[in-house]
Amino acid sequence: MEQGGSVANARGAGSPQTGTVRSPRGSYAKSADTRAAILDAALAVFAESGFRSGSLRDIAQRVEMSEAGLLHHFDSKARLLLAVLDRRDELGLQFVPRDPNDGVGTLRGLVALARFNASEPGVVELYCTLAAEATSPRHPAHQYFVSRYVSIRNTVHAAFASLHERNLLRAGVTPDSATRETVAMMDGLQIQWLLDRSLFDMGDDLHAFLQGMTTAEL
Amino acid sequence: MEQGGSVANARGAGSPQTGTVRSPRGSYAKSADTRAAILDAALAVFAESGFRSGSLRDIAQRVEMSEAGLLHHFDSKARLLLAVLDRRDELGLQFVPRDPNDGVGTLRGLVALARFNASEPGVVELYCTLAAEATSPRHPAHQYFVSRYVSIRNTVHAAFASLHERNLLRAGVTPDSATRETVAMMDGLQIQWLLDRSLFDMGDDLHAFLQGMTTAEL
Repeated sequence: MEQGGSVANARGAGSPQTGTVRSPRGSYAKSADTRAAILDAALAVFAESGFRSGSLRDIAQRVEMSEAGLLHHFDSKARLLLAVLDRRDELGLQFVPRDPNDGVGTLRGLVALARFNASEPGVVELYCTLAAEATSPRHPAHQYFVSRYVSIRNTVHAAFASLHERNLLRAGVTPDSATRETVAMMDGLQIQWLLDRSLFDMGDDLHAFLQGMTTAEL
Repeated sequence: MEQGGSVANARGAGSPQTGTVRSPRGSYAKSADTRAAILDAALAVFAESGFRSGSLRDIAQRVEMSEAGLLHHFDSKARLLLAVLDRRDELGLQFVPRDPNDGVGTLRGLVALARFNASEPGVVELYCTLAAEATSPRHPAHQYFVSRYVSIRNTVHAAFASLHERNLLRAGVTPDSATRETVAMMDGLQIQWLLDRSLFDMGDDLHAFLQGMTTAEL
């Protein structure tokens, strides 16, 4: 089928996931490349038009495929979206160490992630829009976002709990409230930043906010 | 035309804006009632399906009108949305006093607004989704949201500036950072709350956050 189609139109077609190795490979590798190219294209289309308005046809066109060819790799638009999100999350997780005893490292990681996000406004916009859309229980990514927020809060909570144990939280700061506030701050700063990127630096603001909660040097 | 059509299907058709007075009135009053009924229906449809997916046909059906009849009152879907937002903002503003010297009153008003919003999750969802969608410069509500955030920040900044003048901000808190953080906190808490309303109380969390920035009793 269209699995060998050109991916020249796909945004990020040159990224590591789509492979830079030009030597002949088996069909599994080819299929993985195609999937990666579809995910890049889907991310670009969803970031541009939103999930509800972004069409499979647009995505298929970017990878020079038919819609049927695309659906050979991903059963539905919803499954495609979830695959896009999973792939992005792997990237994001690289910034945040998951050592529950390294509170300072986790908080620094969140700031690094905010700085990285600032380099990709289209993706930030997609996440903001999706997170809001997906608060509706009927949205295909609802369960994904519910789980995602639980997971993020667990990571952030472990960081504040470890700082709390070592008496490194400022007076009045509890791990519970600090966790919800930190996650809220990350989301809320993104909205304001997307509306006016000249207003402030997301990484600087998040750093200052987090530094206000701990006596440890971030 | 359809101006006298039943509004029985419109959510909130019994609200004060649509009038409970049953006596005959002039065509101006009738037209104002119809506009109000359309705005209620539009708010319900947009809150349910989002702006991009919510259709004029659905809105027209709720007020038992044709699309053409609806477009007699509002030129386009985009204008209809802006009218919906303006109407909601008038309601929201009632909670927040605009006296720039009354910092405590403004911050208390924000908490009251958060508590009111908690009674209308559909509307909160619409605003969250729209604010995120509208970060795109091509979105019809982009300028509206840019202006809205400038206006909200001005109000909040005046509150913190007045507290600052009276030495009522805690150490390290500046009006600039406190303003961005407060607006971000309001937006961010909404997302988490929409995803799991049992998790926390938006009013309580916002109150605790704001109390952490001022020595005045909120």
